[in-house]
Amino acid sequence: MKIAYVVPGPMDHKEAARRGAILKEWAAPDTAVDIRRVEEGPASIESMYEEYLSIPAAAQVVFQLEQEGYDAAILGCAGDPGLDAMREITSQMLVVGPGQTSFQTAAMLCHQFSVLTIAESMIDTSFELGFKAGVLAKLASVRSVEVPVLELATDRAGTMEKIIAEGRAAMIEDRAQALVLGCMSMGFLQVAEEVQEVLGIPVINPSRVALAMAESLVRSGLSHSKKSFALPPKLATGKVKSLHELSVVGE
Amino acid sequence: MKIAYVVPGPMDHKEAARRGAILKEWAAPDTAVDIRRVEEGPASIESMYEEYLSIPAAAQVVFQLEQEGYDAAILGCAGDPGLDAMREITSQMLVVGPGQTSFQTAAMLCHQFSVLTIAESMIDTSFELGFKAGVLAKLASVRSVEVPVLELATDRAGTMEKIIAEGRAAMIEDRAQALVLGCMSMGFLQVAEEVQEVLGIPVINPSRVALAMAESLVRSGLSHSKKSFALPPKLATGKVKSLHELSVVGE
Amino acid sequence: MKIAYVVPGPMDHKEAARRGAILKEWAAPDTAVDIRRVEEGPASIESMYEEYLSIPAAAQVVFQLEQEGYDAAILGCAGDPGLDAMREITSQMLVVGPGQTSFQTAAMLCHQFSVLTIAESMIDTSFELGFKAGVLAKLASVRSVEVPVLELATDRAGTMEKIIAEGRAAMIEDRAQALVLGCMSMGFLQVAEEVQEVLGIPVINPSRVALAMAESLVRSGLSHSKKSFALPPKLATGKVKSLHELSVVGE
Amino acid sequence: MKIAYVVPGPMDHKEAARRGAILKEWAAPDTAVDIRRVEEGPASIESMYEEYLSIPAAAQVVFQLEQEGYDAAILGCAGDPGLDAMREITSQMLVVGPGQTSFQTAAMLCHQFSVLTIAESMIDTSFELGFKAGVLAKLASVRSVEVPVLELATDRAGTMEKIIAEGRAAMIEDRAQALVLGCMSMGFLQVAEEVQEVLGIPVINPSRVALAMAESLVRSGLSHSKKSFALPPKLATGKVKSLHELSVVGE
Amino acid sequence: MKIAYVVPGPMDHKEAARRGAILKEWAAPDTAVDIRRVEEGPASIESMYEEYLSIPAAAQVVFQLEQEGYDAAILGCAGDPGLDAMREITSQMLVVGPGQTSFQTAAMLCHQFSVLTIAESMIDTSFELGFKAGVLAKLASVRSVEVPVLELATDRAGTMEKIIAEGRAAMIEDRAQALVLGCMSMGFLQVAEEVQEVLGIPVINPSRVALAMAESLVRSGLSHSKKSFALPPKLATGKVKSLHELSVVGE
Amino acid sequence: MKIAYVVPGPMDHKEAARRGAILKEWAAPDTAVDIRRVEEGPASIESMYEEYLSIPAAAQVVFQLEQEGYDAAILGCAGDPGLDAMREITSQMLVVGPGQTSFQTAAMLCHQFSVLTIAESMIDTSFELGFKAGVLAKLASVRSVEVPVLELATDRAGTMEKIIAEGRAAMIEDRAQALVLGCMSMGFLQVAEEVQEVLGIPVINPSRVALAMAESLVRSGLSHSKKSFALPPKLATGKVKSLHELSVVGE
Repeated sequence: MKIAYVVPGPMDHKEAARRGAILKEWAAPDTAVDIRRVEEGPASIESMYEEYLSIPAAAQVVFQLEQEGYDAAILGCAGDPGLDAMREITSQMLVVGPGQTSFQTAAMLCHQFSVLTIAESMIDTSFELGFKAGVLAKLASVRSVEVPVLELATDRAGTMEKIIAEGRAAMIEDRAQALVLGCMSMGFLQVAEEVQEVLGIPVINPSRVALAMAESLVRSGLSHSKKSFALPPKLATGKVKSLHELSVVGE
Repeated sequence: MKIAYVVPGPMDHKEAARRGAILKEWAAPDTAVDIRRVEEGPASIESMYEEYLSIPAAAQVVFQLEQEGYDAAILGCAGDPGLDAMREITSQMLVVGPGQTSFQTAAMLCHQFSVLTIAESMIDTSFELGFKAGVLAKLASVRSVEVPVLELATDRAGTMEKIIAEGRAAMIEDRAQALVLGCMSMGFLQVAEEVQEVLGIPVINPSRVALAMAESLVRSGLSHSKKSFALPPKLATGKVKSLHELSVVGE
Repeated sequence: MKIAYVVPGPMDHKEAARRGAILKEWAAPDTAVDIRRVEEGPASIESMYEEYLSIPAAAQVVFQLEQEGYDAAILGCAGDPGLDAMREITSQMLVVGPGQTSFQTAAMLCHQFSVLTIAESMIDTSFELGFKAGVLAKLASVRSVEVPVLELATDRAGTMEKIIAEGRAAMIEDRAQALVLGCMSMGFLQVAEEVQEVLGIPVINPSRVALAMAESLVRSGLSHSKKSFALPPKLATGKVKSLHELSVVGE
Repeated sequence: MKIAYVVPGPMDHKEAARRGAILKEWAAPDTAVDIRRVEEGPASIESMYEEYLSIPAAAQVVFQLEQEGYDAAILGCAGDPGLDAMREITSQMLVVGPGQTSFQTAAMLCHQFSVLTIAESMIDTSFELGFKAGVLAKLASVRSVEVPVLELATDRAGTMEKIIAEGRAAMIEDRAQALVLGCMSMGFLQVAEEVQEVLGIPVINPSRVALAMAESLVRSGLSHSKKSFALPPKLATGKVKSLHELSVVGE
Repeated sequence: MKIAYVVPGPMDHKEAARRGAILKEWAAPDTAVDIRRVEEGPASIESMYEEYLSIPAAAQVVFQLEQEGYDAAILGCAGDPGLDAMREITSQMLVVGPGQTSFQTAAMLCHQFSVLTIAESMIDTSFELGFKAGVLAKLASVRSVEVPVLELATDRAGTMEKIIAEGRAAMIEDRAQALVLGCMSMGFLQVAEEVQEVLGIPVINPSRVALAMAESLVRSGLSHSKKSFALPPKLATGKVKSLHELSVVGE
Repeated sequence: MKIAYVVPGPMDHKEAARRGAILKEWAAPDTAVDIRRVEEGPASIESMYEEYLSIPAAAQVVFQLEQEGYDAAILGCAGDPGLDAMREITSQMLVVGPGQTSFQTAAMLCHQFSVLTIAESMIDTSFELGFKAGVLAKLASVRSVEVPVLELATDRAGTMEKIIAEGRAAMIEDRAQALVLGCMSMGFLQVAEEVQEVLGIPVINPSRVALAMAESLVRSGLSHSKKSFALPPKLATGKVKSLHELSVVGE
């Protein structure tokens, strides 16, 4: 099967290539996984404003990927920016959001879990994500490690220390029994496995789990429901012929 | 007080002017209300894709309005597209979303209410709006009148008939005790008052209520909480100086 | 528009006059606001027993206000005692409860808020109020400042200190992003604005917000739903002709 | 043990005596049950206004019953008017509300149940009762038989027919697996047993169950929590010496 | 009335007799209560594995008790293992689970309560029990006293100390207003009354309350709903004639 | 990776072999999947009694599979009987329940879904499963096709007709946007794909999805949390040495 991973921002080519290589290692033997990035957008996503900023360009890429015959696309941000829109504009190709998928995966493994996000300002939107995923009932807490996305990798040891400290606090104070890392850059830092070892509870790596779940869904012949994510009416009725025509300029 | 109403799409100037005039009629004696439209965006909003498409340009206008000294801005779409982002990028000026505000207003008047939206595909996102508004507990149902936004006004009598039919069904089948019209174009069609007369229950006009509630909040010295909607970190820490710098182009 | 504020107890005339004057300052230019008190009832309301004690006499006043042509009546206790009954016995005039209205207003401004009440014994009933308001989903916590109602004003500085201390605790421990002052006497102490300044989050003054929201609702042509708050059957069917006849004496 | 049943209105003495006799038949061998009525109040309770009207006088009787050494008092209305206040003003004697108790009893027997109330206008307040009882999660629906309280007994066969029809509808449409009769006059009509026979699911008689549960609680050494229902502060601190002093007359 | 208490494990005969004697003391004057134990099963129940291990044999006893004409059977474990199955296989005789019954009884007395269980590993399943009981809305917390079931009685004073310490913590940290002892061995230790005295809030003894509530339900002519707990289809349709035939051996 | 599928009853060897062959077809290229059946238990599972009957023997098999070095075991019943116990007694090997896993998978694809179960008597327990899965918020309805498990395959066309009819009803009446087949025998009938084609929404085959998700979890280095499913205390502390010793015989 063919799966694409979409970086919703103009990530440096080297880092994008590094992430692509990791995805290939994680993939099942019969999966071909490619990485795509958009050319313009936020440098990193740490606010709802930046989430929205990333959507129009990323949606164009997703729309294109379906034309190219991909089986699934992974939206490369754990906030799942615009996931519903991307599911609206695709009909055959599955689109997966790492955030919601990670939450649902955590629900498979425990009674209640906690999410570790990068900044306090993302805590409430993580609860909104839990609502969208339908698993708010198992979301014990959301905690922040307070490291800017672009600095997560500069001090890997320090980042891991903070993840372990907040994870431990979640276990003791919130009765967390599994953790979700709420950021793709954390995911590609490949710390989940080590944190899992130290804390003794499952730690969900959103990058890895998004890929594995996309594979399972495709393998099971499943895609997102078009009853949930209908084609935009103007497209469905033929009033406009392409995604671009949905945007107009006023006189 | 000074309030601006932002049309998040390139609406025809005549229609924008008509709406601006209606807003002036609705306003309190001490309110000056202006209408602003963005120059590029969706022709109308009937899908999540179009909601997201409207956000970046509308956010720029909202950001600008704060610089101009407005007390409040109303986001002119009942889906409240990007409301959280617009609250993130403003510090003094209140930003109000007509969707959530209408839901909360309905909660003031009854035990449970229903929302009438324009297309079946917007039903689930209306429930998400109910979640964001915090009043899901009083949301009895969401029903669709199945009229495209751009055709709502072409047959006003037909539109009203459909609103009354669905409203009555909501009363009988879902025990709705108040109705929310889930679209600004419905609001500016000024049918709420007539439907209210016919059905005998409160009918919330989102356009009118968004203005009235913005006035009340400003009058009470209140604005959205910056603890809920923090300035994007890169702006807050001075890493970028303007909204535009948050969007970058890859090499 | 004409709005009446009903004090549901035999408040000292001077204090009632002081509150009436404050209301006039807060009112919109086109609002005439009057204060009314009942002649017999609890000295202050700090228990459910006292809430109930206040209702029959206050209901008579509310019933009378509708005859006099008021557009809205505000029930002057943040516990909203008997609000549903007062809405049952009025048909044209809006009745507003400051408690529920304040909770719904807080929901307009943040993801989650806390309520500061006057005594620990009112904490659970504040959650019941949150249920009635339909916004329990956003109610992070209820905390008590532990000052008897009748002593709130005797040491204004001390009261404010306690409000700030509990408000800060709510921010840190419960992630409150806005506060509701849960008592009208706190409201007329006019500390909300100062607390807001100190804590940096919206602080809802129930007295002021009840007035502002009543104005907005009237301005929008809205009143409480008679489908939610039906006329008592004996009145509706003409079995009794007045409110007084609903109370009978046994042989 | 000694249990009193309080009629919160000036019921005709003959009917009160009839109810007292039925209660004696239902009681356990070691229970002495007495009936008490208040002298002034609503003729029957079919609205929230009438509920509130009944509370002050009924509370006085409940307060007196504790002085007389009763082990428990049953509040004789299925809307549980003022139950919280009556629990506030008693310290040793258990006070039981038939409404909430019936809901909790139904929860003991099935996955979900429905309530049959007397008028459509009481449906929403029945849901509020479900919230107070803590069992909203099992409350499938509330339906109304639309018979005025004072006419329930005039056509017993007709009343029963309506109860069976609504009960059957609840089973089929709402998947009700048990029923609660939501009115004490229905309870003393002694139809629950016959309806149970006809429909084949448990039918809770609130009058009988309130007595049986009061007996069980007393037998188990349990009473309502004073942490939940604290003595009114003015009484607790000795500022007033009696229930009457809590009501004052203004100058 | 005749009630049986079923010990779902091969308890030592002396201890079983002691418990039987206590039950007789607690019973109403018109109740005959017998104790039955199964011959093979877990020594004590401290895990879900042991809960399930106990069910087949205990179900056989419950099935037999109905044949013997008992009015009610109490399942002697506060985890209510297999309660639904036991209600499926009985048609006339009420089956009561002490866990759910205690939770529902606590709901009768307060706004929110806490459960004290014996081991941390039973905390999540206690929440599941709260869901099944329908009273999750009032369950403030579940805390563990960390004493193995078989050691509860060896140091009664030490056990009580731990119960009081955790109960006090529940009051202060979780706002618990009543407590449920989540283990039958705690129940027969007869500490509830003393803890209640020390802490000043109701403490539910599951052993005693299960008996008292079974009595009340039988006295009220009520049993579990067969719409909720249907006879297994193979039995209902006559495909098998006895409980034993439901278990088959493969070729 | 090595995965075992455990049939929790003495299924006919030929049918077991057929299912094993289907599983091999569904598996990823690097997965070896084996089928195991227990020797004694229920012929099929259509009641909670039969669920419990299957657990002790199935648990022994699961326990043994871990010794044999399997990476994951799938519990072959969509009611997930004893899943928690099987997770308690395993430490390295993942155990997956097809019921909960299917619900969580459905949550990945839509806003709300419905479950089709085999008998009306399993509807409530399906909701309990939804609670355990943590996705009750997305469970629109549970409907029954009313075909006994052992007859599902005898008239494949008739079974499919009933599934399509109930599925369509769920779409129209309950707004279902995806379906879960709530029975493994339905799963191995391989109708999901055809129903999906006819109805145009995702249809979850629990047999196939349980395998695919087990593969993804193992591939991602994840297993169930031992904080959620602790080893039974007697095993953990060494009081007993084997699973068998947990069951004792009374004197």
